[in-house]
Amino acid sequence: MTNKKAVVLLSGGLDSATVLAIAKEQGYACYTLSFDYGQRHKSELKAAAKLSKVFGVTAHKTIKLGMGEFGGSALTDDDIDVPIKKVIGIPVTYVPARNTVFLSIALGWAEVLGAKDIFIGVNAVDYSGYPDCRPEFISAFESLANLATKAGVEGSGFKIHTPLINDTKAQIIQKGNALNIDYSATVSCYQATIKGEACGVCESCRLRKQGFEKAKAQDPTRYKS
Amino acid sequence: MTNKKAVVLLSGGLDSATVLAIAKEQGYACYTLSFDYGQRHKSELKAAAKLSKVFGVTAHKTIKLGMGEFGGSALTDDDIDVPIKKVIGIPVTYVPARNTVFLSIALGWAEVLGAKDIFIGVNAVDYSGYPDCRPEFISAFESLANLATKAGVEGSGFKIHTPLINDTKAQIIQKGNALNIDYSATVSCYQATIKGEACGVCESCRLRKQGFEKAKAQDPTRYKS
Repeated sequence: MTNKKAVVLLSGGLDSATVLAIAKEQGYACYTLSFDYGQRHKSELKAAAKLSKVFGVTAHKTIKLGMGEFGGSALTDDDIDVPIKKVIGIPVTYVPARNTVFLSIALGWAEVLGAKDIFIGVNAVDYSGYPDCRPEFISAFESLANLATKAGVEGSGFKIHTPLINDTKAQIIQKGNALNIDYSATVSCYQATIKGEACGVCESCRLRKQGFEKAKAQDPTRYKS
Repeated sequence: MTNKKAVVLLSGGLDSATVLAIAKEQGYACYTLSFDYGQRHKSELKAAAKLSKVFGVTAHKTIKLGMGEFGGSALTDDDIDVPIKKVIGIPVTYVPARNTVFLSIALGWAEVLGAKDIFIGVNAVDYSGYPDCRPEFISAFESLANLATKAGVEGSGFKIHTPLINDTKAQIIQKGNALNIDYSATVSCYQATIKGEACGVCESCRLRKQGFEKAKAQDPTRYKS
């Protein structure tokens, strides 16, 4: 067994599933981390657990996080509707400081595990305009990680891996298909049913649909009938 | 009423109580944030709630955070004893990435509230050797905050306030006494009883005790008899 350990942020969506496959391919023993942060689409948590099993990860944890209490996002606040049209600028589905919080907690687990590598499926191309998906954010977080921790200070050096950051959705799908990912097990929809069926009309569904089209790949997404 | 809003990280200990008093003194409407992260000393959460009431904060939230699951610290892992002697280097009471996680969640709340100011009671003098209490960590987090968020990108500029960072424990106590803080309501002990009584022998008790001595102030701490 490999002793290279990596913490992989796994939402249960298409991007993070592809990242997990890439980390496995690179020979890491994977520790997947998911968050129950009050999101509407709980079915993605079921997808994350299923994907963790399929990929034979070393451990999978789902951390409860009471951030939904703050509101302020269509993904956690029932009073804000998920938009169904293309959005200009930063959309209401943006969850304040989400990736900062997720990476921070991943960093804590990595330090306990003695892992130096953290994988995250952020993407700066088809990225819905979220500020915490950009390369400059990731690089600032990496610097922070090495100042913030005992492991960083003692010199082991954390690395944040973003293998999809420059890919289009179509390229991500092509990478994943080359690694034989079963994308029917992933959930991208912002308002998926508990069975994991997609609405087909939200921003996330739209990007995913276009991705399969452009990749000229079969779309296995299960849509609500 | 003031419209300057600040999120104040409030553990219920001596330092964060002093920070809350300082933020109030500076005219902020305060939103206090505490974490139930699996720490041994739950009585500090009761202290945080009590202090929030005493100081008349606008809102107080306690966020549950399943980080205790990771273990790796004497504060969250029952298998690791809290040390009772002076420790050289970074001690086992260090909780991996704790301040990074706390500040990230504070940032999320601040963004939702439209607050630009976050207060944290870190201290680089009597600081127990934690890497995430140093000025270089705070300044890296501030840069990150302005890259990570919609509010940061759109130019409002977050500021992380650390009014105690260069103070000795004695100086902190003197500041607090000048602001009439009732320190008997605060809990510093790493293994306080549920009633908030301190052990008197852990690192945190030792630093606090010395602080009151050096400040020539009466120590109102309730010790276990």
